[in-house]
Amino acid sequence: MDAPESGRSTIPIPHARPRTDFDAVIVGAGLIGLAAAWRAAQRGLRVALTDPEPGSGASHVAAGMLAPVTEAHYGEERLLRLNLASAARYPGFVAELEDVAGTPTGYATHGTLAVAFDTGDRAMLADLAAFHRRLGLASEPMTGRECRVREPLLSPDVQSGLFVPGDHQVDNRLLLAALLTAIAREHIALYRERAAELVVTHDVATGVRLADGQTLHADHVVLAAGCHSTSLPGLPSGVLPPIRPVKGQILRLSVPAGAAPFLNRAVRGVVRGRQVYLVPREHGELVVGATVEEQGFDTQVTAGGVYELLRAAHGLVPGVGELPLTEVRAGLRPGSPDNAPILGPTDLPGLIAATGHFRNGVLLTPITADVIAETLATGQPPQTAEGFEPQRFSEKAALT
Amino acid sequence: MDAPESGRSTIPIPHARPRTDFDAVIVGAGLIGLAAAWRAAQRGLRVALTDPEPGSGASHVAAGMLAPVTEAHYGEERLLRLNLASAARYPGFVAELEDVAGTPTGYATHGTLAVAFDTGDRAMLADLAAFHRRLGLASEPMTGRECRVREPLLSPDVQSGLFVPGDHQVDNRLLLAALLTAIAREHIALYRERAAELVVTHDVATGVRLADGQTLHADHVVLAAGCHSTSLPGLPSGVLPPIRPVKGQILRLSVPAGAAPFLNRAVRGVVRGRQVYLVPREHGELVVGATVEEQGFDTQVTAGGVYELLRAAHGLVPGVGELPLTEVRAGLRPGSPDNAPILGPTDLPGLIAATGHFRNGVLLTPITADVIAETLATGQPPQTAEGFEPQRFSEKAALT
Repeated sequence: MDAPESGRSTIPIPHARPRTDFDAVIVGAGLIGLAAAWRAAQRGLRVALTDPEPGSGASHVAAGMLAPVTEAHYGEERLLRLNLASAARYPGFVAELEDVAGTPTGYATHGTLAVAFDTGDRAMLADLAAFHRRLGLASEPMTGRECRVREPLLSPDVQSGLFVPGDHQVDNRLLLAALLTAIAREHIALYRERAAELVVTHDVATGVRLADGQTLHADHVVLAAGCHSTSLPGLPSGVLPPIRPVKGQILRLSVPAGAAPFLNRAVRGVVRGRQVYLVPREHGELVVGATVEEQGFDTQVTAGGVYELLRAAHGLVPGVGELPLTEVRAGLRPGSPDNAPILGPTDLPGLIAATGHFRNGVLLTPITADVIAETLATGQPPQTAEGFEPQRFSEKAALT
Repeated sequence: MDAPESGRSTIPIPHARPRTDFDAVIVGAGLIGLAAAWRAAQRGLRVALTDPEPGSGASHVAAGMLAPVTEAHYGEERLLRLNLASAARYPGFVAELEDVAGTPTGYATHGTLAVAFDTGDRAMLADLAAFHRRLGLASEPMTGRECRVREPLLSPDVQSGLFVPGDHQVDNRLLLAALLTAIAREHIALYRERAAELVVTHDVATGVRLADGQTLHADHVVLAAGCHSTSLPGLPSGVLPPIRPVKGQILRLSVPAGAAPFLNRAVRGVVRGRQVYLVPREHGELVVGATVEEQGFDTQVTAGGVYELLRAAHGLVPGVGELPLTEVRAGLRPGSPDNAPILGPTDLPGLIAATGHFRNGVLLTPITADVIAETLATGQPPQTAEGFEPQRFSEKAALT
């Protein structure tokens, strides 16, 4: 029985499919997956995307702040460099994308104002300003009065501030829409199906089986499924560290024409111990975010989460009380063990990681897309991605 | 040209419709309109209801508290008597309705606990208790400890309370659903159309023209359109005083099985000057309400409204913060000039009022339905409605 069968399998079949359907199948059509697919297709690669609800996860819920400088932290200089490099690519990225898609992305370059209320906040902002000076990053300390000249609706309790001229914003929902148009223009196959299993053949990732039963065979599989990246069945253990969901609740308010411009730029502050940011959009939306909660895969909006955000926003800009509240929602950020992204080839041949972006997914979209496209095209990640390899979490890495 | 036309109009047509299609057409299918239609049909009257979205207005948004005693006010003894009379009809009303509809109404008789935080609140509750004693209404003063024995999740800051054993609740959404079933059982015609005009012929209300152009001819028109009652085109001026919309924002939270029973009964209090009530449902919903705002016809939920409710709820029962927030919504109460309902025949023959229920619409549903059905059946409102006649606002009334 064996001989004829194995014999039969070697008979060349005319018009048979090639061994793979795609150069790459990307799991996850959030900002990261979409942008990576777009950049890879621009290089001539045959790309497929799979996502049951493209553009509906954390990318949709996010506020769209691009704030590497305001969010710079001691000890995270490597991540800061990556964040700054991605921020620097934003103008070109959105210009090219808007040109291809024919729709705006809401990229706005009015800077960010961080403000302080009490002595503790002031000291924190002064430390941040000193850190900026040491690294040569632009930021301008301001008095409370100077803050209110820039943002007249700020609370009179604001004591001081720090204006960061290079921290900007993009409308993440417009960005998603433009990317969805762009991938359609590139004829990228978009499967609206859940990835049910990573297909591994002889210790090589060779494709993805979808929930509807079909299998997409590919030379490479790119994991860009955010906090769901490492729960994909079939993923061998140890290839990637667990990616955990970090819940963020976020509000959307609406600024009536008569009250516009409510704020001129993104404003952030700490109010009674709670971080809050307010991001105004040109079309009248005001995004207020966000909680940071370790609650597992839970996207329930809670009374407490909404209360804390409203309380903090009200403390920062009392006039928000008058604004219509149009949306309350929670998303799940993908957190890696060191809260930095995981980019590039894994120890499982054929499998490439583009996940773990935590709070910086929107900001890191352009550079991640470039890193993944380069890796797919050349087999090697660019130097930009150094330090963000999946291997940094392996036991061997821990011992060196 | 005139003679043949007028001649033609007098030719008797066999099988012509009777002069009226209905004994009564009721404008508005909220709780008041639905219950009145049901009660009138039970007396054998031919009834029609018209509403573009039955059961979707203030009746849907409300919390369903039946609290005549907790909400008793000096100087409103007449309204208190009406409220108490309607509360007394509730057990029979819901029993009959549940029997007809075959679905529950969520009527629950666990009483209401009003609590106080500071000296001002305590004095207010003590005044209310004295008022209750004078009128012979049942209420029990309690210490803070006694309050927490009944409701262990109450804030430790609660200093005292007043338990009102006769103030209950109904699930207004279940009540609406049961009434919709009941009117279908009675074969009451329900037109899902906006009433475009009150038809007045020779100074008599004779029907309603609908937005789709058809006219419902009726012996009586009942205005039960809540805050929209007096903006019906065709309504002669002076027949009714203006009914104004009084906005109420209200939240719905959900109590997970593991946290149930979160509260055992309706709890209310004043927190930093804000009235708030929390109404727990058997099926796990917790209703938190409500703001009282004079904002015109505006049903926008605002950041400030939600913030004030959450702040007050959090002050009363800190554990609400953990609960999922499932709905935020605003409704418009119908406010009359004296905030009491307007019940019975108006000075325009054929037109009957059933509006102006302000904060007591759910509570006053059974008695209003009885008053309207009696008025339709006999031509005279029952004595219960005395003092709530539309004529009390006329100039003549003001001079007597």
